[in-house]
Amino acid sequence: MKKIRIGIAGYGNLGKGVEMAIRQNEDMELAGVFTRRDPATVTVKTPGVKAYTMEDAKNMKDQIDVMIICGGSATDLPKQTPELAKDFNVIDSFDTHANIPQHFANVDAAAKENGHLAMISVGWDPGLFSLNRIYAESILPNGKTYTFWGKGVSQGHSDAIRRIPGVKRGIQYTVPVEEAMDQVRAGKQPELTTRQKHTRECFVVAEEGADKKQIEESIKTMKNYFDEYDTTVNFISEEEFDAVHNKMPHGGFVMRSGMTGENENTHQMIEYSLKLESNPEFTSSVLVAYARALSRMKAEGMTGCKTVFDVAPAYLSPLSADEIRAHLL
Amino acid sequence: MKKIRIGIAGYGNLGKGVEMAIRQNEDMELAGVFTRRDPATVTVKTPGVKAYTMEDAKNMKDQIDVMIICGGSATDLPKQTPELAKDFNVIDSFDTHANIPQHFANVDAAAKENGHLAMISVGWDPGLFSLNRIYAESILPNGKTYTFWGKGVSQGHSDAIRRIPGVKRGIQYTVPVEEAMDQVRAGKQPELTTRQKHTRECFVVAEEGADKKQIEESIKTMKNYFDEYDTTVNFISEEEFDAVHNKMPHGGFVMRSGMTGENENTHQMIEYSLKLESNPEFTSSVLVAYARALSRMKAEGMTGCKTVFDVAPAYLSPLSADEIRAHLL
Repeated sequence: MKKIRIGIAGYGNLGKGVEMAIRQNEDMELAGVFTRRDPATVTVKTPGVKAYTMEDAKNMKDQIDVMIICGGSATDLPKQTPELAKDFNVIDSFDTHANIPQHFANVDAAAKENGHLAMISVGWDPGLFSLNRIYAESILPNGKTYTFWGKGVSQGHSDAIRRIPGVKRGIQYTVPVEEAMDQVRAGKQPELTTRQKHTRECFVVAEEGADKKQIEESIKTMKNYFDEYDTTVNFISEEEFDAVHNKMPHGGFVMRSGMTGENENTHQMIEYSLKLESNPEFTSSVLVAYARALSRMKAEGMTGCKTVFDVAPAYLSPLSADEIRAHLL
Repeated sequence: MKKIRIGIAGYGNLGKGVEMAIRQNEDMELAGVFTRRDPATVTVKTPGVKAYTMEDAKNMKDQIDVMIICGGSATDLPKQTPELAKDFNVIDSFDTHANIPQHFANVDAAAKENGHLAMISVGWDPGLFSLNRIYAESILPNGKTYTFWGKGVSQGHSDAIRRIPGVKRGIQYTVPVEEAMDQVRAGKQPELTTRQKHTRECFVVAEEGADKKQIEESIKTMKNYFDEYDTTVNFISEEEFDAVHNKMPHGGFVMRSGMTGENENTHQMIEYSLKLESNPEFTSSVLVAYARALSRMKAEGMTGCKTVFDVAPAYLSPLSADEIRAHLL
């Protein structure tokens, strides 16, 4: 069997996760890593695979079936994905929800013009959580959907803490409020405010001599990040920080509480949850499964930009149609 | 907008649930109910809609876009679905897992020969649980999948109880073992026996003068139904039975415990669960959402037999592609 040849553009946590995920899938192989750093300084873990500059990619079009783009959503992906879609079939995990329509349009145009297939916003939210929203809302049209995140590290909020003067190290955990989730599970369909759904827990190592009261105040009142939440700030030692807060766990819940029946008073509850020890490794695993789907859909002649909504689940599995019907249905 | 015209073949709990689900979807309408009973004795709840004999269906081909077949899996569907697929686009909830490949082949042949599109085994297991198995196994290839059912009424086990001499009324609940689920959630990937995964709770109204010890013994030792489980049998009054055990709740859990990362020691947990106050009403809601998908896929020219694995999620939603990307992704 000819393996699906994957390129990785961007070799940070996500790119390294993709590399590890490829190893778990026998029908795939890593063809190259593309980086903005000096490739000579980058050691690819997979034996026999090299690092290249982003510019080198153009010369390797015929060696790569799917390019998985592992940049950040703020500034990398809006440029990289449409650009790389000119030369490759591409997939990214773009997660700035508000800008998805614009990103989709840009990538769709670039991919279509060049006869390529692209997928954007592949991961768990957007991604698997989106799938659960569309399935649940289509099945239970009379109902309410709730998304809770955590417990997990928010990179954006952790970065915000670290920008405060006097903060040496900082990390923020988003924590879903258990009582709110229990109300939803009980079928009460509550209206929940931002504050009622999540709390924010911060762990901070202060610079020597820093004003901890001032740091705590700065965090708790920070607009758009913390002011609408109940936030706790814990000052800890650097040793404790390094020992306990060195992981990137995350996860969350998508719940649909719906009503059916003649009087629409029969309660039906759908709940999906993820508990992830490593957010980037999991997102990588989702990307790799969708890279398989992408290569199959491309082989059937599809072009342009797709999302998880457009991918029939059978495309994701390495098993044949007969096998999945016999063993998974 | 032209509505999707649905026919219902079989007007029991499932068929009535389909009728109620159609009311919740503005893009659909009920075109007719087809029954093996005398149609004169059947009152359809939807104003203006009539009951017909199954034979009448042949004369109404141009009035029905999708026929939802609401018969039982044991004897009805293996005959009805291939037969009706000759004249209609059809969908069923065939749930005898072991016979799915044969049923698929029969329905596929009938549908293809006549240019129709069919979907089989649409519901929650098979159905939504199958989807969660394929998504989770494709994303986390190194792992173990667990399915737990309940707490809910098993029709087959309740029927088995009622066949025992001296039993006037009987119902059986399948109950998942909480400790087993917690082991899975903790990432232990245990090997679980049948007994360790579920218990069976029975509620029985005995005939006057019946030997309760004998009934209990007959239930607990019944081959294929109860002998491999820890079973409890509760004798209750007919009043209590009618007051408490008059519903058809069900549900369950699909869990995937997987490992990622360089040493494959990062634990990632995916869990999907349903808590349903009415099993038939929920299955009906799934059927109706997939009837929408079926009518769209047929409009694109597809024929033959499909399962939930072949249906891209976007087909299920009444919203447009732009809307789902903007609001659900």
